Amino acid sequence: MSDAIDRLEAVIRARRAADPDTSYVAKLTAKGRAKMAQKLGEEAVETVIAAIADDRAGVTSEAADLIFHLAVLLADLDLSFADVFAELDRREGVSGLAEKAARPKD
Amino acid sequence: MSDAIDRLEAVIRARRAADPDTSYVAKLTAKGRAKMAQKLGEEAVETVIAAIADDRAGVTSEAADLIFHLAVLLADLDLSFADVFAELDRREGVSGLAEKAARPKD
Amino acid sequence: MSDAIDRLEAVIRARRAADPDTSYVAKLTAKGRAKMAQKLGEEAVETVIAAIADDRAGVTSEAADLIFHLAVLLADLDLSFADVFAELDRREGVSGLAEKAARPKD
Amino acid sequence: MSDAIDRLEAVIRARRAADPDTSYVAKLTAKGRAKMAQKLGEEAVETVIAAIADDRAGVTSEAADLIFHLAVLLADLDLSFADVFAELDRREGVSGLAEKAARPKD
Repeated sequence: MSDAIDRLEAVIRARRAADPDTSYVAKLTAKGRAKMAQKLGEEAVETVIAAIADDRAGVTSEAADLIFHLAVLLADLDLSFADVFAELDRREGVSGLAEKAARPKD
Repeated sequence: MSDAIDRLEAVIRARRAADPDTSYVAKLTAKGRAKMAQKLGEEAVETVIAAIADDRAGVTSEAADLIFHLAVLLADLDLSFADVFAELDRREGVSGLAEKAARPKD
Repeated sequence: MSDAIDRLEAVIRARRAADPDTSYVAKLTAKGRAKMAQKLGEEAVETVIAAIADDRAGVTSEAADLIFHLAVLLADLDLSFADVFAELDRREGVSGLAEKAARPKD
Repeated sequence: MSDAIDRLEAVIRARRAADPDTSYVAKLTAKGRAKMAQKLGEEAVETVIAAIADDRAGVTSEAADLIFHLAVLLADLDLSFADVFAELDRREGVSGLAEKAARPKD
């Protein structure tokens, strides 16, 4: 699975500099940060809808789109999933995260 | 990184059966699928906002919350990140995904 | 303004029964509730992004799209903006709403 | 209905300058544009979920929250629903909007 993340991120980094006419990632990158963020939001909405419909294949597909567009957005900020998982670990381990998340937020 | 995903998913599976009074995951699970999906949507909105504000620490933190709640939602559907990354691979490899995603969707 | 809402809702009701090949509303209606809800979510994301970019023309345009798709969704549930504003009034008047909204929600 | 919009907007304008300790609108205003936008996004997600669950009372309530927070956000941009409905009208009347919306967007 780690390999899949590494490959996803490597492909996205490579595609960012590709021709926007042939690469979706390059095209999205050319449109700018707001468009990448918009796509992330849209895929999240689709994941929500598939989950409520109890559509397992749909959730798998939409979650793949969500992860893909999160990777595109992270790359644009010069961040990676390694940073995100380090944050999860930083929260006193994953157990700590679960407790931290339990704290009420405004 | 793969270890971090494995640990995150193991903790969530274990916590689902815990006491809702002491575990955030158990509490969220007790509230049902719609509440889990709602949280995913909310964290996506927060990730979008942090990204547009060019707030790298914020994106890292919100993306961690997003991944965490995606893991909670996947678990509720008896799915895992392994299924999501298999889907990414199934799309003729990650390269294929990038091209597939380029196809216009309505 | 009330006239504008009335006309919007009248057009949407009329278009729901139109030919999906020539009417966007009929096409969206044919795709079902989930697709209508998805569009609402997407327009909300675009409104959020325009607002943060302090893009007044963008917010005006995206909020128009948001209101339009909310009207489509309400019609599909046999609801109208009159029901929504009645709910706002029901909350002890608009002042009451503002206070109700201040109560913490989980 | 127009009266309800007018009253909603008047209350929000008045509350923006109120004490954040007693007014939800003042408290949200003090938190800034991003927080207002976040709330709009969250209420849209809740509206989506209620619609898919075919929960008419839920949609009415969440749509009221959505309209309320849209009004708060518009006020922060010195915009109003009048501007939004003027945009709907500007699109060659509501009929024009329905056709404009039918054009594919990327």
